[in-house]
Amino acid sequence: MIRFNNDYNRSCHPAILKALEDDFENSYPGYMTDERCQRAREEIKKYLGCPSAEIHFATGGTQANAMVIASALRPYESVVCAETGHINVHETGAVEHTGHKIEALPGARDKISAGALDTYVGKARSSEITEHITQPGMVYISFPTEFGSIYSLAELKELREVCDRYGMYLFVDGARLAYGLASPKCDVSLADLCSLSDVFYIGGTKCGAMFGEAIVIRNDSLKKGFRNMIKQSGAMLAKGWILGIQFEPLFRDGLYFEIGKKAVDYALRIKKAFNDKGIDSYIDSSTNQQFVTVTKKQAEILAKDFIYENEDELEDGRKVIRFCTSWATTEEDADALIKAVEAL
Amino acid sequence: MIRFNNDYNRSCHPAILKALEDDFENSYPGYMTDERCQRAREEIKKYLGCPSAEIHFATGGTQANAMVIASALRPYESVVCAETGHINVHETGAVEHTGHKIEALPGARDKISAGALDTYVGKARSSEITEHITQPGMVYISFPTEFGSIYSLAELKELREVCDRYGMYLFVDGARLAYGLASPKCDVSLADLCSLSDVFYIGGTKCGAMFGEAIVIRNDSLKKGFRNMIKQSGAMLAKGWILGIQFEPLFRDGLYFEIGKKAVDYALRIKKAFNDKGIDSYIDSSTNQQFVTVTKKQAEILAKDFIYENEDELEDGRKVIRFCTSWATTEEDADALIKAVEAL
Amino acid sequence: MIRFNNDYNRSCHPAILKALEDDFENSYPGYMTDERCQRAREEIKKYLGCPSAEIHFATGGTQANAMVIASALRPYESVVCAETGHINVHETGAVEHTGHKIEALPGARDKISAGALDTYVGKARSSEITEHITQPGMVYISFPTEFGSIYSLAELKELREVCDRYGMYLFVDGARLAYGLASPKCDVSLADLCSLSDVFYIGGTKCGAMFGEAIVIRNDSLKKGFRNMIKQSGAMLAKGWILGIQFEPLFRDGLYFEIGKKAVDYALRIKKAFNDKGIDSYIDSSTNQQFVTVTKKQAEILAKDFIYENEDELEDGRKVIRFCTSWATTEEDADALIKAVEAL
Amino acid sequence: MIRFNNDYNRSCHPAILKALEDDFENSYPGYMTDERCQRAREEIKKYLGCPSAEIHFATGGTQANAMVIASALRPYESVVCAETGHINVHETGAVEHTGHKIEALPGARDKISAGALDTYVGKARSSEITEHITQPGMVYISFPTEFGSIYSLAELKELREVCDRYGMYLFVDGARLAYGLASPKCDVSLADLCSLSDVFYIGGTKCGAMFGEAIVIRNDSLKKGFRNMIKQSGAMLAKGWILGIQFEPLFRDGLYFEIGKKAVDYALRIKKAFNDKGIDSYIDSSTNQQFVTVTKKQAEILAKDFIYENEDELEDGRKVIRFCTSWATTEEDADALIKAVEAL
Repeated sequence: MIRFNNDYNRSCHPAILKALEDDFENSYPGYMTDERCQRAREEIKKYLGCPSAEIHFATGGTQANAMVIASALRPYESVVCAETGHINVHETGAVEHTGHKIEALPGARDKISAGALDTYVGKARSSEITEHITQPGMVYISFPTEFGSIYSLAELKELREVCDRYGMYLFVDGARLAYGLASPKCDVSLADLCSLSDVFYIGGTKCGAMFGEAIVIRNDSLKKGFRNMIKQSGAMLAKGWILGIQFEPLFRDGLYFEIGKKAVDYALRIKKAFNDKGIDSYIDSSTNQQFVTVTKKQAEILAKDFIYENEDELEDGRKVIRFCTSWATTEEDADALIKAVEAL
Repeated sequence: MIRFNNDYNRSCHPAILKALEDDFENSYPGYMTDERCQRAREEIKKYLGCPSAEIHFATGGTQANAMVIASALRPYESVVCAETGHINVHETGAVEHTGHKIEALPGARDKISAGALDTYVGKARSSEITEHITQPGMVYISFPTEFGSIYSLAELKELREVCDRYGMYLFVDGARLAYGLASPKCDVSLADLCSLSDVFYIGGTKCGAMFGEAIVIRNDSLKKGFRNMIKQSGAMLAKGWILGIQFEPLFRDGLYFEIGKKAVDYALRIKKAFNDKGIDSYIDSSTNQQFVTVTKKQAEILAKDFIYENEDELEDGRKVIRFCTSWATTEEDADALIKAVEAL
Repeated sequence: MIRFNNDYNRSCHPAILKALEDDFENSYPGYMTDERCQRAREEIKKYLGCPSAEIHFATGGTQANAMVIASALRPYESVVCAETGHINVHETGAVEHTGHKIEALPGARDKISAGALDTYVGKARSSEITEHITQPGMVYISFPTEFGSIYSLAELKELREVCDRYGMYLFVDGARLAYGLASPKCDVSLADLCSLSDVFYIGGTKCGAMFGEAIVIRNDSLKKGFRNMIKQSGAMLAKGWILGIQFEPLFRDGLYFEIGKKAVDYALRIKKAFNDKGIDSYIDSSTNQQFVTVTKKQAEILAKDFIYENEDELEDGRKVIRFCTSWATTEEDADALIKAVEAL
Repeated sequence: MIRFNNDYNRSCHPAILKALEDDFENSYPGYMTDERCQRAREEIKKYLGCPSAEIHFATGGTQANAMVIASALRPYESVVCAETGHINVHETGAVEHTGHKIEALPGARDKISAGALDTYVGKARSSEITEHITQPGMVYISFPTEFGSIYSLAELKELREVCDRYGMYLFVDGARLAYGLASPKCDVSLADLCSLSDVFYIGGTKCGAMFGEAIVIRNDSLKKGFRNMIKQSGAMLAKGWILGIQFEPLFRDGLYFEIGKKAVDYALRIKKAFNDKGIDSYIDSSTNQQFVTVTKKQAEILAKDFIYENEDELEDGRKVIRFCTSWATTEEDADALIKAVEAL
């Protein structure tokens, strides 16, 4: 069986395992105050174009999301996201657990448009019952989204403009950032993300690391006390250098971007194979997740040799299934799947 | 100007003012441990058919809602309600502030149907990602709803059955209960509400009291520590007897039901006047809130003498406005409005 | 039986009942946006010397405390108070319920000294493990304290100075403020409290009102969104004018100060009677609460005609009991108690 | 420089690194549903004597503590611990962040005694103001404590008895459990801990693992929904098998106990060296943490070659410093320190 079910089914990229092995004899101070985290921060900063940005590490995405959001909002403020936003549907109420309402932007299935956001927040701000409703204080988007879509630079700038107008923070969840940046459609750089968002994170867990996300805080007003937030959230890894050791090789010599590129290349070849066979994409993704609409019969055939994820069942009986590539996907894996698709 | 904008624009029913005056010289122990609260509880219990029910008082509905919900749920559990549920759209995230997600039942604009609830919760319980999503632990409905609708006895029994199947509590917000029970369409009694819900509250603020809601807890598992919940929620009125003094006259000799009946009679006469004039009801309410769809011109004319509430603006330019009667509405008020409608 | 057990055992001062009666026929907009609240705010402001202060009303002290504290702190920040601080020992964890730690200043049984505060916060700010501990963001004091003590103007200025040095807010709980301001030892005015604190509240419940506290926010950074906080906390009274109607007569013509003065006069006469009899004060209070140390026999004798509060039992078997006067205490009540003490 | 500052300054025990290397090529399902976590659970269960216990993994202690406590308590319930309890002083209010008060048992500097607990909780349960205070719902102890002390079997049974009497859960934080079980004074087994507590955790981070704690839930009432709690708390590691891979070798063939024994042997030799030199232990620890009271001069000399932790400064100018051994401490390290102590 070949796993295409997700992008976190293998321990880590060999370069990271090697870094952990090489470091085995060393001892460090705890809680991410060590030189390895510092070196990792410096490697990442080379791409940010923002020397004053602060970089913190978390062990996973849900943790990073809840922590960043709770840190930014006053008690009566909410965070706005797409209906399918990971924080809204896959994190067991972690954000609400910190006391904040998530407001799913009506109609925003995948991406958030600046126009819809403007209308929605404008209404909340000017409503006669403005004090009886939560006030959006932050916008959360994913790059790429849950369906593998990406925002263009122009779209991000428009969102930024709306956020500025209403005094909201813009937070970008980059759990799969490597794959977004590697999309042939992407015209956004890490430096763009840094300058257009107030805070974002660079996903490690799904992009080659054993675990870990690097949170980049650009906006000064979000920096104060963030290490206290990390500790309070149970996210302060005692042996913090384990995170630094992972992010340093990911960003030294551009490994992170290579990982993304290889996985996206395979994903697009797989997508083409499906489409060439007359099997539609459920959504037009240009990143490492491909959603296709297959018959039950086709799903069964593919399930013999491949593990994929079931997403939905359409009214006509067809199924939406997801194939996901990652740093660990090999050319042989991709070829095997493509061959199987061609034989459907 | 005559106020039809809401049902809480006058201090209190004369019987309640009199009770407060009569009691002026007495002194009591604090925090609702006094004999006046006890007497009010006894008056209410005469209608419940459930001697073991516990009755507590709160000063307002948002407070009662947040407190009851927080008391009932484990941290990862959510409360399900209609999209227009008061807790979802008019309480500034008070429920989320206690750490719990509100899940608006997709498509439920007004009432919740047992079928839709069954489908929704069934999916949450059996999902492959059941641990990655909040689990509905309580269903919240209003009686009457935000649009003045009421559930039939049969509908309540169906909801109860779904709740039992999935181990969920059923909580009924009765902020406007007097007006619901007085609806000519209502086949539900206070005793029915008590036996079919796990906990519900009897609204005072909108039904004749100066302020106050009476929370009725039938389910034993919700009783433990509820007075601690009240104190923690900032809802433990030091001079608790002020609440008892209000609820005793409301339930002695059936004043609560009279108040409801009179207000609903006026509301239905007003509704008929609009409909007779060819002005549609936005929703078919049989209680004290009437939503009608008027032209801008009509809205302006009515605004000269009457205060109503603006609800929405339709795409064709018409407006949805609300007229609300209450214990304080007089025959003269109603007649004046009806006459104005006839003259439109 | 004559009640000296607390200062909230009678409904309200006659002037307030009259104001409620006089207002019975009027109707108002809801949620404290009415003219009566506005007039009450103006009456209070005459004493504050701070035209830009914002005044909000809450229904009780626990509510006011939790709301103000939650509004002011970031998630990892704590509030510092005396060990006996009301928020620490009598509010069922209402502050912790909003997510914040209360730090009882070690050794501070009654008042907080600027020196002890400086040492404590200084250590927290400079500790090697500063990120592993909560950071004091606010200091909470009561005026008068739980034991009836008052801070001098000099002491308040010293606390203010420490708060400024460490970037902390100073919050004064004035649940019994009328009695504190009336103390013969008091050299602090309402205007002083307003200028030296960031936010404080003027107690109504224990000082003549049926219920209600007036929260005064001087510091601009605490003003934004406070009405949303009120709603979220379940503290937004629908018929908000009921609060305005109470506070207006309390502050028009100085009734609030008269109430305080009369109650303190009686309390000091009672104190003198005990002390003259050789019965020690447990703590030297100059306000309306008097704590005395009596033998069990004496306690039993007094319990025949008077209701007081049991506070503690000393190792030598004596009891600490509290006698509390209020706006409702009459000269006859005080004389009866004094006579009984003289006869012990 | 030789690090004795803590027990988490090296990545992991060689057996764990090897296990991670050996597993590099395998792929697994996510979120701790894999076979490696299952095998680790089975290895651990061999020592528990409780087949129905549930075992979950967390990435760190603060996370485990907050999650377990929030899972067990109703909103108004508190957790009782020693004044020095890790949750009380070193976790940045993580427990309060979940809404619960921590009550430090007065006078309990190190261990909690059953007698003091009984008195304290008895008072809370029977107080006249029982509804105005938080109610202890759980007792938190560490084994060993922050000062390296251990509870005897008899002491644990007494605590259990008090917990049963008042309906409280008993939770044991075993962050340093390996070192506690290895103490020559220890008469408690893993099976004892399991049967006497409701829930406890077996520390990995400080006992040989790269990171991770194994939470053992014995009490059925705490099991429901715990995986949802894990996800909500941001503690659901995507690549969950990384935790299983670490705990399996720790418990197969008793490595965990060997690690503890070796570190404690070194610690006791170090302690003896200090005591023989006339340098007192600050507290009589029989585990891997040794607290000694040295002069400033002695502290300076030792600081030349060894990293230790500064704990406190006594009034006479002496310092309390901590030396900590771990799985990574070598015989050479210990000998070097002993030699240095002898030369003081």
